[in-house]
Amino acid sequence: MAQRKGPAVWAAFLWPGGHHHGAWRLPGSTGDDIMSFDNYRRMALDCERAKFDVVFLGDRLDAWPLPDEYLARTARGARLETITLTAALAAVTSRIGLVATASTTFSEPFNLARQIGSLDHISGGRIGWNVVTSYTDDQAQNYGLDHIPPRPARYARAQEFLDVVKGLWDTYEDDAVLRDKETGQFFDADRFHKLGHEGSHFKVAGPLNMERPPQGHPVICQAGASKDGIAFAARNGELLFSINSSIERARDYYQAIKTGAADAGRDPDDIKVLASINPVIGRTQDEAEEKYQQMQRLLDDDVSRTFAEMYFGMDLSGYPLDELVPEIELPDASHGMPRAHQEYMLNKARDEKLTMRQLVYGFNGTNIYPKSAEAAADEFQEWYETGAADGFILQISHVPEGVTDFVELVVPILRRRGLIREDYVGTTLRENLGLARPVNRHTTARSVPA
Amino acid sequence: MAQRKGPAVWAAFLWPGGHHHGAWRLPGSTGDDIMSFDNYRRMALDCERAKFDVVFLGDRLDAWPLPDEYLARTARGARLETITLTAALAAVTSRIGLVATASTTFSEPFNLARQIGSLDHISGGRIGWNVVTSYTDDQAQNYGLDHIPPRPARYARAQEFLDVVKGLWDTYEDDAVLRDKETGQFFDADRFHKLGHEGSHFKVAGPLNMERPPQGHPVICQAGASKDGIAFAARNGELLFSINSSIERARDYYQAIKTGAADAGRDPDDIKVLASINPVIGRTQDEAEEKYQQMQRLLDDDVSRTFAEMYFGMDLSGYPLDELVPEIELPDASHGMPRAHQEYMLNKARDEKLTMRQLVYGFNGTNIYPKSAEAAADEFQEWYETGAADGFILQISHVPEGVTDFVELVVPILRRRGLIREDYVGTTLRENLGLARPVNRHTTARSVPA
Ligand SMILES: Cc1cc2nc3c(=O)[nH]c(=O)nc-3n(C[C@H](O)[C@H](O)[C@H](O)COP(=O)(O)O)c2cc1C
Ligand SMILES: Cc1cc2nc3c(=O)[nH]c(=O)nc-3n(C[C@H](O)[C@H](O)[C@H](O)COP(=O)(O)O)c2cc1C
Repeated sequence: MAQRKGPAVWAAFLWPGGHHHGAWRLPGSTGDDIMSFDNYRRMALDCERAKFDVVFLGDRLDAWPLPDEYLARTARGARLETITLTAALAAVTSRIGLVATASTTFSEPFNLARQIGSLDHISGGRIGWNVVTSYTDDQAQNYGLDHIPPRPARYARAQEFLDVVKGLWDTYEDDAVLRDKETGQFFDADRFHKLGHEGSHFKVAGPLNMERPPQGHPVICQAGASKDGIAFAARNGELLFSINSSIERARDYYQAIKTGAADAGRDPDDIKVLASINPVIGRTQDEAEEKYQQMQRLLDDDVSRTFAEMYFGMDLSGYPLDELVPEIELPDASHGMPRAHQEYMLNKARDEKLTMRQLVYGFNGTNIYPKSAEAAADEFQEWYETGAADGFILQISHVPEGVTDFVELVVPILRRRGLIREDYVGTTLRENLGLARPVNRHTTARSVPA
Repeated sequence: MAQRKGPAVWAAFLWPGGHHHGAWRLPGSTGDDIMSFDNYRRMALDCERAKFDVVFLGDRLDAWPLPDEYLARTARGARLETITLTAALAAVTSRIGLVATASTTFSEPFNLARQIGSLDHISGGRIGWNVVTSYTDDQAQNYGLDHIPPRPARYARAQEFLDVVKGLWDTYEDDAVLRDKETGQFFDADRFHKLGHEGSHFKVAGPLNMERPPQGHPVICQAGASKDGIAFAARNGELLFSINSSIERARDYYQAIKTGAADAGRDPDDIKVLASINPVIGRTQDEAEEKYQQMQRLLDDDVSRTFAEMYFGMDLSGYPLDELVPEIELPDASHGMPRAHQEYMLNKARDEKLTMRQLVYGFNGTNIYPKSAEAAADEFQEWYETGAADGFILQISHVPEGVTDFVELVVPILRRRGLIREDYVGTTLRENLGLARPVNRHTTARSVPA
């Protein structure tokens, strides 16, 4: 694997409670203030000062599906809706990219084309859309269904949905808008196009009532981990979020994505793969360990077991907490969290001979562990330079400290090593990521002689 | 009619092109910059400085349904989506209320409950939701339908939609959230409620993944003008937008609404009726007239006729532009613009003996005419004090001048007369409007002895 140089892509996945399940209980943490926009604003501005590429905002269409009594002991029962949150952050930031999550399973393409396109206009071209298909029955039950549709059906709808949305974004060619006050010609009707889509899932006439987004198309982001998910990513994704339990697995995933992209006729450089690596930072390993343990002590057995049950999609009450993790046969995961999340934990349990309590306490968040700033920088560098990732998505463990610690302790090291940029190079997210601006389909058609 | 004192409610309906169809062409106007968030930001901040209650943002799910060649000669072919725009404005304002428009016909209650609720959290309780049902076939055609459903079906869905959304907003009782870091109890599971709705249009399990909005329920706004629309307003509305062609008609409408509210068991004071009165302001009548004529000269025959055809839902090409307006038989309006808009223009044509050209040029916007600042203040005062309205919604004719002229020339007169407040009295829109905060349905149930 050729060693690579130059800055990596940096994204921060913000969750105002902190991604570690115990984090909201830390004294001095703002993690109990999960409905506070200010909490997000502060974190986003910190990330912008550090010249991160992206602030990532996740979303789901339910409270986490834990029994009420356990949900009530977490900071996961409520959240701001992501598109509105992204719009508000767009108004108070100026350079950083913002990725909003929205599900193709439970919305209409005309509505999302407008909302995501509008975000791109409001932010001056700084938007990515994390295309998700949702994966739990309890989300489906908020939309008239009893069960979430099977994965292949979800991704088939997602593909048509995305094609419709991109078609709508191409309503106006880039040079369609004239705004000629003298003649009264606002736009050129010949460069304004209806869609007339009729497919198996959608019938959408268009035109979209919106000038083309500044980026042409906002950046398409994705995090599918299944076979269907990876195929969708290879075909459509431009910025991918992945979770892998080892650098070797990450390299395999990276290769699979880049090969898939090439097979789909795309330049592999047009897909950036980000790995979720989530150190709790200290000046020293001991300091990091101490912070981490402080959060681990704020977990409790029942809530942790219930979280693990949700991740595995199975009942774990039969496994005593103080015994070693046995071989666990996972149920069909086609409606559950991605197998990669599950296997990550089971592999770790096997390798490190964990007890059930250690296993379920490991579901404290996503792949969170203590690291000194220097060791963390080493790890990022190794993953980046040896082709395990084009960059990183940090699921910040505790707030606001997890952000400020990273920015103050790790970023300076990364910057010295050339792994994080000195300043933004462009005004749009595409420019900062080095992704080309999509040519409008009608302009392409026009420029090809008949 | 008892004379009334004290400040009226003031709302500005912002459209970045200006509501007058010729306005975008004015030299020095920013009205050609219709996709610009800055344009909105500036206007909203001007309104906030003037202590307006509300900035109103309309929305529709199409470009205006004019033939492309005519649409291309207007500033109506594109717009920012309203919910994202409202969120961005919430982040840059601090006191003024913000009303976002969203259609119950083409969205899901779970999605809108989240988005409108999220806006209320982000803004600290300054949100109103303008509940619309959409009214043109071309909007329906962006959502898989050939025709817009008939009005009674739309309002039946709207009622169930609103009931579901309010039920979702009541998921958390107001005192449900404990955030007890010491014990680890985030909320009280006994004060957290699923919805379990199964109706004729929707099946929604809940819970909503959001703490109760700061206002309990964001303010319900509405502008229905049909029989169904008025019935919906009387039952649900808290802030209404109306267009009437004379003060007498406005008083009748006002009475009908207040009586309807009383019949529905509500306190008539809990519905505020705003009248759309849209003067183009000058220091003198001549100055106002000159500005108005400047915009009228920027209209053209074909575009104006096409607009009028859209409003009337009929072909007008058979009527010569230089002849007097004949008796025109309007088609069934059940899918068109409200009859009130149509009758407004026909009454005026009859009373003032207009030519067809004058009629179609009258569709320059909504009820826009020139007035000196003093005369405008007199008109507002008369409408307010004699019970034709609780306040006003200004469809600003041209931007940014229409806003700044109003703020600089009319507001000081209104303030001297006590018709506009000195300062905001509360932090939420409800408080500023004097509307009670709805009690959570579960709390009500709890406080009634069994
Ligand atoms: C970093 C990261 C963030 C994610 N964020 C979300 C999210 O916000 N909402 C969501 O529904 N799914 C989210 N997912 C899940 C994925 O979108 C995807 O649904 C999941 O990985 C299952 O993949 P599959 O659909 O291919 O099985 C995330 C995954 C990762 C790795
Ligand atoms: C001031 C005002 C603003 C309005 N804004 C919108 C809007 O933004 N979007 C929309 O679809 N309808 C809008 N309407 C139309 C009404 O919501 C309603 O659909 C229309 O008056 C027809 O009434 P009906 O449904 O009772 O026939 C507006 C009406 C008025 C008076």
